[in-house]
Amino acid sequence: MLEEKLADYHNSNIYPFHMPGHKQRMYLPNPYAIDITEIAGFDNLHNPREILRSVQDAAARLYGAERSFYLVNGSTCGILAAISAAVPRRAHVIVARNCHKSVYHALELREAYPEYVYPIGTKMGICGQILPESIESAMQISPECRAVIITSPTYDGMVSDIEAIAGIAHKQGIPLIVDAAHGAHFGFAKEFPESPIKAGADAVIMSVHKTLPSLTQTALLHIGGDIISSERVMEYLDIYETSSPSYVLMAGIDRCVEFMSRQGTDRLRKLAVRLDIFYKRMRQLKCLSVPGRDMLNPSEAYDFDISKILIFTNNAGITGIELKRRLRSEYELELEMACKSYAIALCSLMDTDEGITRLEDALLAIDDSLFEQKRSMQIHKNPEQYAQAAETGNEDIQEARNAGTTSDTAWIRRKPIQAMTPAEAVESEGEETAIEESEGRISRGFVVPYPPGIPILVPGEVIDRRSVTVIRHMSEIGMEIEGLSGNNRIKIVK
Amino acid sequence: MLEEKLADYHNSNIYPFHMPGHKQRMYLPNPYAIDITEIAGFDNLHNPREILRSVQDAAARLYGAERSFYLVNGSTCGILAAISAAVPRRAHVIVARNCHKSVYHALELREAYPEYVYPIGTKMGICGQILPESIESAMQISPECRAVIITSPTYDGMVSDIEAIAGIAHKQGIPLIVDAAHGAHFGFAKEFPESPIKAGADAVIMSVHKTLPSLTQTALLHIGGDIISSERVMEYLDIYETSSPSYVLMAGIDRCVEFMSRQGTDRLRKLAVRLDIFYKRMRQLKCLSVPGRDMLNPSEAYDFDISKILIFTNNAGITGIELKRRLRSEYELELEMACKSYAIALCSLMDTDEGITRLEDALLAIDDSLFEQKRSMQIHKNPEQYAQAAETGNEDIQEARNAGTTSDTAWIRRKPIQAMTPAEAVESEGEETAIEESEGRISRGFVVPYPPGIPILVPGEVIDRRSVTVIRHMSEIGMEIEGLSGNNRIKIVK
Repeated sequence: MLEEKLADYHNSNIYPFHMPGHKQRMYLPNPYAIDITEIAGFDNLHNPREILRSVQDAAARLYGAERSFYLVNGSTCGILAAISAAVPRRAHVIVARNCHKSVYHALELREAYPEYVYPIGTKMGICGQILPESIESAMQISPECRAVIITSPTYDGMVSDIEAIAGIAHKQGIPLIVDAAHGAHFGFAKEFPESPIKAGADAVIMSVHKTLPSLTQTALLHIGGDIISSERVMEYLDIYETSSPSYVLMAGIDRCVEFMSRQGTDRLRKLAVRLDIFYKRMRQLKCLSVPGRDMLNPSEAYDFDISKILIFTNNAGITGIELKRRLRSEYELELEMACKSYAIALCSLMDTDEGITRLEDALLAIDDSLFEQKRSMQIHKNPEQYAQAAETGNEDIQEARNAGTTSDTAWIRRKPIQAMTPAEAVESEGEETAIEESEGRISRGFVVPYPPGIPILVPGEVIDRRSVTVIRHMSEIGMEIEGLSGNNRIKIVK
Repeated sequence: MLEEKLADYHNSNIYPFHMPGHKQRMYLPNPYAIDITEIAGFDNLHNPREILRSVQDAAARLYGAERSFYLVNGSTCGILAAISAAVPRRAHVIVARNCHKSVYHALELREAYPEYVYPIGTKMGICGQILPESIESAMQISPECRAVIITSPTYDGMVSDIEAIAGIAHKQGIPLIVDAAHGAHFGFAKEFPESPIKAGADAVIMSVHKTLPSLTQTALLHIGGDIISSERVMEYLDIYETSSPSYVLMAGIDRCVEFMSRQGTDRLRKLAVRLDIFYKRMRQLKCLSVPGRDMLNPSEAYDFDISKILIFTNNAGITGIELKRRLRSEYELELEMACKSYAIALCSLMDTDEGITRLEDALLAIDDSLFEQKRSMQIHKNPEQYAQAAETGNEDIQEARNAGTTSDTAWIRRKPIQAMTPAEAVESEGEETAIEESEGRISRGFVVPYPPGIPILVPGEVIDRRSVTVIRHMSEIGMEIEGLSGNNRIKIVK
């Protein structure tokens, strides 16, 4: 049933501007044929001494890490293991509030006290970098912190200055953990950002499936330097990662590492050349906006990953979600993510020239139609029409009205009050309430729009009006939100 | 590199009497073609409402559970989630000491206080069932316990009386969690043991890859009754399971569930008929012993899983490990596991008649040769020869001498002193020492022969002489042991 549906998708004409990075253009005849258990000669991922040690060492060499670990439970288990290995129970840690939910899960498991730092805002309304100054001042306020945890690149491709941040952490003798799940292609070509492990991070987690040709659920955890003990990391990977790791997934990582060793730099350069043409063509857009590296303002981001194509719709009278829907239904292009004011098309070194051309043509065509629509609306618009549209649920117009009034990720920077640690809240007795009635209560669960997986609410946070508005709004425009029950109810501490 | 090696194994003439249960006899053309991310129409495993909800509900119907969860991080994440959902932090729990390491990992994460119960010993030297009486008395001693956790079937196929044990737990209002990783084929045919979820367990974890035709790393978590909250289980699966679950693995579970719905009962009956012939032929053995259900003594085990073929070597002048080696090198049959006094050949409903015949013929031939060898040894043997053998390391003879003196799993029942909880020990400062010098110290790590994955030492246990002997002995006879450093050193609390 599921398999047929997946095969139908593959056999359709739809072009994937989403993960995984292999873009369905790799080939392996029959995975069952190479799916075995830990028989003699095939080593043990949790105690690697032979082939699984040597393939992991090859990954470490490729990325310039002291030690690299294959992850078959995705970046998730690498994040849990790195944080667990780096900090003792009930420690204070500096955490960027725009981290992926798995980071908060690690905090919950470790009963940690998070001290949040916030990414700076950007002109485009998305989250920018974590400034080294933010880390510096967090350390001055909370010198007892035992680790720094940030995400770079973000889902949107914004990169922080790892070298500077690592320097600040190391001055204090504590490690920097970087969730680089979306940056496994960094460090191979100068057209893309530098490798966070080479820039001095102590632990770097990279999903190889997201941007490289590897099967979904595969990732790498790199350890650099000696602040974080590889031994401890292995102890925790033993906990968080299955004791029956798939040889199909492991062979897939190996194949990906070999591929990158041989062709990575070359392919990424070719992608950059193609994207350069793409971004130039996008300058013709009249309503939509695809700024690419042009949007890079040094105060907003240290670097930007051009393979994450951000298509802003703020001035187009259309939501990102509606744009994504049109690209799919009218042009058979499937994007990675959409929210109110923008959508993301993910490219990888496996994209075809034809695929990128299809996206270019589609965006220009939609832009033309939006421009026409806008012009005619400017001629005909009157307030009653708007009111009526809101009543009848004409989403396009309704959204056009809202566009620009609420930034998509600005809510991350609202600095909620933490009444309890995540662990304390999760262990508390809970109840459910309607979102509308939750203001002032303490969240007992995570509320996470997915993608990108950054929690609006972390357990222990006091629910403020802004969060209520954001959750309701996201839910209304059709974003997928984890942590709400069927009836849009929310878990709170009793 | 890894892929080629795996393909070579597949293309060899070696017949797999090991996991996974598909026995490399399923087919899927190109996994990359159906490997996608959570795009529209394909639901979200961590918030299932459409196709992923309906395929999981199909699994629940098949097994008679209230709710079933797909697991793509193996039984491991199901065990962590079930235990985390069932007991609060720092709770006391009744745990069978012959559980898989993932159970102890859950105890560590929850900072739990384990109150151990021990399986009864058996004539054959392996661990038998957990008696309902043992649970009953543990509950009287520790009425504060919040859950009961046992493994049934064991890796060796020994089954406990789930209905009776569930009854005892429920009388106290606490849940029974059953690690049935090796029993996903139970409950389909009367020739095999009953389904633990139907027998009244509250949470049952089953690896579908181990005994059914599914890809490695796939499993199911079933919830029965309402003592364990499915909501809480989902919260913890969200933590322990990747946020990028593989659609290939999920499609594989769905395919397996459909296969079992249609053909499960029929295929298992056919396997039972074939195994009946097999066990009858094994009665001809003169040195080796493959007792099958004959070994079932109601006081030792409530039931036995005949698909786990146990080949005892106690009276054959050979170790299980040497037998496994011979079966591979002389007959191209790869077994699942071997230790000193026995080896395990795993059958599944995907085995061929020809494969089982090859095993029969090989065992009878080896048995003949061992019988001959034994006769000639009885004629020639003298004590000096033995002493010399020990010096020169002639393993066969050396082992012959040891055989029968130390049971393979009797060490589980030695009841070590717990000086700290697992969590306390892991969080303590540690150091390393030679195994020989570790007696009397507190273990800071897990020491786990793998397979089967039952820890000899759990963090916090005082290392006794018996453990030292068992670890050294297992290491000497070439068993894979996790938790020892390269130089056979062991982690202890400083």
